[in-house]
Amino acid sequence: MSQHVVIIGGVALGPKAACRFKRLERQSRVTMFDRDSRISYGGCGIPYYVSGDVSDAKELQNTAFHMTRDAKFFRDTKDVDVFPQTEVLGIDRAAKTVRVRHLPTGKEETVAYDKLVIATGSSPRRLPIPGVDLPGVHTVTTLDAAEAVRGMLSGGAVGSAVVIGAGFIGLEMAVALADMWGIETTVVEYADQILPNVIGSGLARMAQTHMEEKGVTFRLGAQVTSIEGDGKAERVTVKGKDGTDTLDAELVIMSVGVTPNSELAKAAGLEVSPRGGIVVDAAMRTSDPDIFAGGDCVEVPNLITGKPIYLPLGSMANRQGRVIGTNLARGTNLADGASRFEGAVGSWCVKLFDVGAAGTGLSLPAAKAAGFDAINVHVSQLDRAHFYPDKGLMSLELVVERSTRRILGMQGVSVMGDALVGKVNAVAALLPSAPRADVLGNLEMAYSPPYASAMDILNVLGNAADNILSGQNKGIGMEEFGAIFSEMGSETGAGGSHFLIDCREWANAEPFMEKHPGIWHNIPQGQLPGRLAEVPKDRDIVLICNTGAR
Amino acid sequence: MSQHVVIIGGVALGPKAACRFKRLERQSRVTMFDRDSRISYGGCGIPYYVSGDVSDAKELQNTAFHMTRDAKFFRDTKDVDVFPQTEVLGIDRAAKTVRVRHLPTGKEETVAYDKLVIATGSSPRRLPIPGVDLPGVHTVTTLDAAEAVRGMLSGGAVGSAVVIGAGFIGLEMAVALADMWGIETTVVEYADQILPNVIGSGLARMAQTHMEEKGVTFRLGAQVTSIEGDGKAERVTVKGKDGTDTLDAELVIMSVGVTPNSELAKAAGLEVSPRGGIVVDAAMRTSDPDIFAGGDCVEVPNLITGKPIYLPLGSMANRQGRVIGTNLARGTNLADGASRFEGAVGSWCVKLFDVGAAGTGLSLPAAKAAGFDAINVHVSQLDRAHFYPDKGLMSLELVVERSTRRILGMQGVSVMGDALVGKVNAVAALLPSAPRADVLGNLEMAYSPPYASAMDILNVLGNAADNILSGQNKGIGMEEFGAIFSEMGSETGAGGSHFLIDCREWANAEPFMEKHPGIWHNIPQGQLPGRLAEVPKDRDIVLICNTGAR
Repeated sequence: MSQHVVIIGGVALGPKAACRFKRLERQSRVTMFDRDSRISYGGCGIPYYVSGDVSDAKELQNTAFHMTRDAKFFRDTKDVDVFPQTEVLGIDRAAKTVRVRHLPTGKEETVAYDKLVIATGSSPRRLPIPGVDLPGVHTVTTLDAAEAVRGMLSGGAVGSAVVIGAGFIGLEMAVALADMWGIETTVVEYADQILPNVIGSGLARMAQTHMEEKGVTFRLGAQVTSIEGDGKAERVTVKGKDGTDTLDAELVIMSVGVTPNSELAKAAGLEVSPRGGIVVDAAMRTSDPDIFAGGDCVEVPNLITGKPIYLPLGSMANRQGRVIGTNLARGTNLADGASRFEGAVGSWCVKLFDVGAAGTGLSLPAAKAAGFDAINVHVSQLDRAHFYPDKGLMSLELVVERSTRRILGMQGVSVMGDALVGKVNAVAALLPSAPRADVLGNLEMAYSPPYASAMDILNVLGNAADNILSGQNKGIGMEEFGAIFSEMGSETGAGGSHFLIDCREWANAEPFMEKHPGIWHNIPQGQLPGRLAEVPKDRDIVLICNTGAR
Repeated sequence: MSQHVVIIGGVALGPKAACRFKRLERQSRVTMFDRDSRISYGGCGIPYYVSGDVSDAKELQNTAFHMTRDAKFFRDTKDVDVFPQTEVLGIDRAAKTVRVRHLPTGKEETVAYDKLVIATGSSPRRLPIPGVDLPGVHTVTTLDAAEAVRGMLSGGAVGSAVVIGAGFIGLEMAVALADMWGIETTVVEYADQILPNVIGSGLARMAQTHMEEKGVTFRLGAQVTSIEGDGKAERVTVKGKDGTDTLDAELVIMSVGVTPNSELAKAAGLEVSPRGGIVVDAAMRTSDPDIFAGGDCVEVPNLITGKPIYLPLGSMANRQGRVIGTNLARGTNLADGASRFEGAVGSWCVKLFDVGAAGTGLSLPAAKAAGFDAINVHVSQLDRAHFYPDKGLMSLELVVERSTRRILGMQGVSVMGDALVGKVNAVAALLPSAPRADVLGNLEMAYSPPYASAMDILNVLGNAADNILSGQNKGIGMEEFGAIFSEMGSETGAGGSHFLIDCREWANAEPFMEKHPGIWHNIPQGQLPGRLAEVPKDRDIVLICNTGAR
């Protein structure tokens, strides 16, 4: 059997599906259309091109073997016909054709397909405020846009910048501007923390503090209400808790998320979710059995909540692309070798200067928003044998459903970025089977002193969760401690309903005791059993340690 | 209820079980005996103390907060009574007592227990050859022995050393000697590869080559038949394939494995396996319900083969110690909060100079030895977005049962040690559920360019396994290629039953083509579709690439 597969979109999922399909069904024909002149590039590399880490935009379009993935490459190497600068205007599902326009010439034609793949990706969101379309406001989601911004930077035209949005791309862009170009950078975020929704507030604060130490300024809980400017000097009006003021900058980057490009699918009568994602089944098939879709234009099931999730990530697109390529050749019956994409737990990682942040599943705020009765368990520990010289602290937060002890997610921040991502991946691998927190306590992690602790931080995290869920102790977050501590401070010496014991050594505790006399008490861990008489029995005891291990 | 728990052995499992139990049952009493003067130290840190990475042996005995875990620490902080330099002579199960001797005084006494924990650890194996007991032959498994060796090294008494055994400890010791002290080091190994049984021969060769570049000499497939010497100059006689010769050295380290210390258990009539490991159930209970055992003296189920496995690792001891501590307090019914240790898949990692090696489950040789019809799948890839500047190659080998596609294990070697360990841990987390190789192809790994590839190496590995098991292509190992290539070389120009195509660019292939005219052909990947006429249809095609991706 020979068939003609038409693919709309040639960035990540399209090429992957095309190449996989051609490997399985060499005799069939694949035609791929893309609006842009450049195809098959690593869009997630744009911040690293803007920063200068990647010297030439072409590298984002190359293979690992320095071949440029252009139309000629796909024709010669993959036997796939690619038409850049060609827009698909519409899909006629009854006739099984697409109408396309070659943009340079304006010439239109109708192309028949046996199977169609929609890989139209996403478009950057723009806030509904005055000035978002000014020439000085950049979304930087295409190579062309990235080259324009990099040109401004290398030309010395930018002394200060405003980044709107403290999500992944916004923070990566802030790092790119501040780290490599030394630009005075302010990040404005509507939520009252960075990485809202994907990470708890405590971890978010750790990452934010590190970025502030590196020179980035944050305006959290603040709303951009308008932008004025001429492409050279911009004025951003920000409405915060304490009123409204303005930020002047030569460059404004708007990173407030992306939305799926599902207009073509919608116009063709395919099922599209209320949020705009094309609806697909586990075979990555749309509501039309001859049309597949994947990547940034679809929604997939969230394997934690069971509800749809929108995850515009290059890694998703690649894996979904292979599933589509397989199923184009083998149909959708598993017995015939079909492939399935069951959904996602939502894993992510981001490098923020010298610190990595990563997570999988639901954060505490996301779990609560999804209706779970969730608690968080926090552990900070050296991710090495404590005697090994080269080591760094890792902070992990486990999110657990209280009644079932089911793990809903885990997030972390650490200077040991690779190690952190490894821990997150180990938990991510387990999440689809809805493990209980106890599983972590006994999870078998590879151990030797240069790479881990004998009691791995994941084991400690699982055990801490066990202790908390069993009622043996209660972990409190920074906000809760802040509330308790300010209550203590307001009552002279009494400490309110809580009694605070710093169980570190005297040298650690002394400065705090001097600062908070009568409130900050010190009983080093080793002396506690012998000094239990000093501990009041009618108050809740707050124990202070560097990492929680004492 | 208050009970008296007696623990025999105070290095890793003993202290862990003691502290966990005391946290759950504060009113009960714990007595811990150990033959040595120093307890609760990180024995796995010994190579790093010998190397000088860890400056003081005391650091191996300290907590992360620089408190020394001695008898006083356990009494003051943990309310556990520890008696160092006290040997347990025998167990009277009927009377529920142990007979102990305080070594400094020779005084003996009988101590009653309600529950007993055997944590007697392991002893280094010694080859049954003349000279193993000479003063110049060290096994370096205790802090005392480590201090003696470190003293020789820092005193400048050692110019060359022989390490017998290329397992984890032997290789770590070789690194310690060669890297930090610049000692001419030869490793003698009976098997014909390093890390026998735990890693396939191809990966073993990669790690070995790196160690050789760092100055370590290997004698593989060689047997030490005798050692002579006086503690200052030793002569090691080695019988290899090509005859017998001798190695002169000032230091001989024997690292040929350890055996469980199960004599006490055996004498007390407890069930002990033919290999010498104490037999325990999932509650870590011996054949006597009042006696628990764990750590280096027990065997546990191998979750891959279902048969017992002996895994003397500090991480095992810590996790098993917590299980025992819990069950001492809560009994062995899960409904009452008992804890279980179901077994192990066998995860490990080791740092060899700048390269990490790690694995989980069965290697190809181990899988074959266990009776599996297993194949291996090899992938080498940059473990980063290929455009990201800071990156390194990672080589992974997946071991799969052919008929069921079940993953039996995965091993790897990489300069990105932390990242490698993370991949191994993700697979280790899956292994107990006996996943099919296909699961890897769609495993959700956290992605951003500084930490991974959009198509994660684990995804690529799973997909490569799928392609091989589906018959789409066949991966060949270095040995198989060697055999094919020497067959080619022996037939002038004809190439035998195979035809070799280097599908890299001309510049990569040219030196090989000059060296092997008529045998080494070059058709770059991009030209292959157009030059198919040059490819013979009646021969098996061997494709050459740097990493396998082409």
